[in-house]
Amino acid sequence: MSITVALDAMGGDHAPDDVVAGGVRAAAELGVRIVLVGRVDEIERVQPAAGSDVELVAAADVIGMDEPPTAVRAKKDSSVARCAQLVRDGAADAMVSAGNTGAAMAAAVLRMGRTRGVARPAVAVPVPVPGHHPQILVDAGATVDCTPEWLVQFARMGREYARTRLGVDAPTVGLLSNGEEAGKGDELRKAAHDLLAAEVPGFVGNVEGRDFMRPGVDVIVTDGFTGNVALKTIEGTIRAVASLVLRVLESTPEARDAGKIVLPLLLEAAQELEPDNTGGALLLGVRGVCVISHGSSGETAIVNAVRCAMEAVEGDVVARVEEAARRAG
Amino acid sequence: MSITVALDAMGGDHAPDDVVAGGVRAAAELGVRIVLVGRVDEIERVQPAAGSDVELVAAADVIGMDEPPTAVRAKKDSSVARCAQLVRDGAADAMVSAGNTGAAMAAAVLRMGRTRGVARPAVAVPVPVPGHHPQILVDAGATVDCTPEWLVQFARMGREYARTRLGVDAPTVGLLSNGEEAGKGDELRKAAHDLLAAEVPGFVGNVEGRDFMRPGVDVIVTDGFTGNVALKTIEGTIRAVASLVLRVLESTPEARDAGKIVLPLLLEAAQELEPDNTGGALLLGVRGVCVISHGSSGETAIVNAVRCAMEAVEGDVVARVEEAARRAG
Repeated sequence: MSITVALDAMGGDHAPDDVVAGGVRAAAELGVRIVLVGRVDEIERVQPAAGSDVELVAAADVIGMDEPPTAVRAKKDSSVARCAQLVRDGAADAMVSAGNTGAAMAAAVLRMGRTRGVARPAVAVPVPVPGHHPQILVDAGATVDCTPEWLVQFARMGREYARTRLGVDAPTVGLLSNGEEAGKGDELRKAAHDLLAAEVPGFVGNVEGRDFMRPGVDVIVTDGFTGNVALKTIEGTIRAVASLVLRVLESTPEARDAGKIVLPLLLEAAQELEPDNTGGALLLGVRGVCVISHGSSGETAIVNAVRCAMEAVEGDVVARVEEAARRAG
Repeated sequence: MSITVALDAMGGDHAPDDVVAGGVRAAAELGVRIVLVGRVDEIERVQPAAGSDVELVAAADVIGMDEPPTAVRAKKDSSVARCAQLVRDGAADAMVSAGNTGAAMAAAVLRMGRTRGVARPAVAVPVPVPGHHPQILVDAGATVDCTPEWLVQFARMGREYARTRLGVDAPTVGLLSNGEEAGKGDELRKAAHDLLAAEVPGFVGNVEGRDFMRPGVDVIVTDGFTGNVALKTIEGTIRAVASLVLRVLESTPEARDAGKIVLPLLLEAAQELEPDNTGGALLLGVRGVCVISHGSSGETAIVNAVRCAMEAVEGDVVARVEEAARRAG
């Protein structure tokens, strides 16, 4: 029986058009069933005839990108809340939303419930490592104020997820800090370091910002504030360096000629750095699969987010994370 | 009268050889007087004859890279403490150290004293922006646990420094957070946002990790933990993307040919991203000029750190920062 993914058709800067198109493509390419959730008239304008692999479920409300997460409570019939409901009710195996991140997390927590033994959810994001499997960054933005104990829970969840996602049997785990030595860090990190060392297998100690994007540690643990800053710093830096390279390839007639050979190769290699390809942020710590795609998601990003959801379902990540939390508790 | 810079000849991975060589070059190229501070026999092995622009001051102790900052108290005659002493006594206008960062900060705070109205010191680092003046990141690692009030002090100091360093009359200031909206951030950021809005001219609100390395905001304020993670994340990402580009230029015979034209241009452009060129981290909030260079500093990095110190002296940064703190207090 194929996997069913509830897709928030109204969520994201390019919704519903690109989101619906991405969902239709995901159904065709990945062999999953897609349930498009949202305003039926707007979805049907994009995709007139739903088939056996693409269904529609009506939701009258939409939560805008700038609304607070509490909008999930106020708007009972929002597309993102309906998606979470479908997962809770077993009508879908997973949900995907490119809409308001806070609202998607709130919907998942409220409707699916939290994993037993996990106090707060965390977002796990793969960070590309050229020529190597990605690193899992956790938390990339779900829980901005953390206790040391919550960082330990994030580490356990991230490690369990890395086993499925990266196919690594015994992933290594590092604590993001401002120096490698054990005594480095703010108060949160110093307390978390000793707990992690005592409780999390594979813990290798502190890692630094320069340990991103190079082989070494498989899972990088931090609070949602620092994780979000680091992830967006990586994005900004990649963009700045790429612009510089493009500027050089336009700088002289000889460079332009050389660029004709080099540029296609560079663009192909750059696919390795493209979040749309490695991408798909999985919300850990909730009792169902919830994948959050970035707000600017186009068709391809949606297909890849659905793939991420599919793999999490196939890998039974939710049960495995719950089991890891139970063993620890 | 020329400016005198006390250089910690024993500090850094390549001390004393490259540090001394860098100091001698700085004296010749920049027209400053250099006081090499450290073990006389080791310095004289590298630089047998000191001239009128390069002098020696003996210091018997060395603080290793892995020692705690408190080593400054235990080792009374360390090279880094002597440097700070020379500045306090007026025998030097500034100090430069590529050694143990914590020890350099402790030496500066203990010997020079803190700026009135500033509770904690902060490190200000220029982050390169291709084709544009750099951004000032403050704090890049001095004070890892912060209060909202300290972030306001960092913002005032960073803004004052940016005026001299960037030559911008009215620098804009952003608070590094996990989203642009005013309500985004952890508890520290939420409290700091409102204080900054009320008290710091040029405050433009929250900025994100992706605002690094692009024109927009002149000063980015954060705590020393997050700032250090962000700075090292930028370094790591630049290195990863650069490796990918080099790999592509080696990937086929045609790419190698094209690389012969493109690579020299890329390496030249990459100078813009090189911390050794934009570099030099200035410790703000102490009553003297203290520049911290990275541990792996070679000759060129030392020359540039001395230049940074010289410009801070010429720009009267210490007095201007003190004046800005006084006006605010």
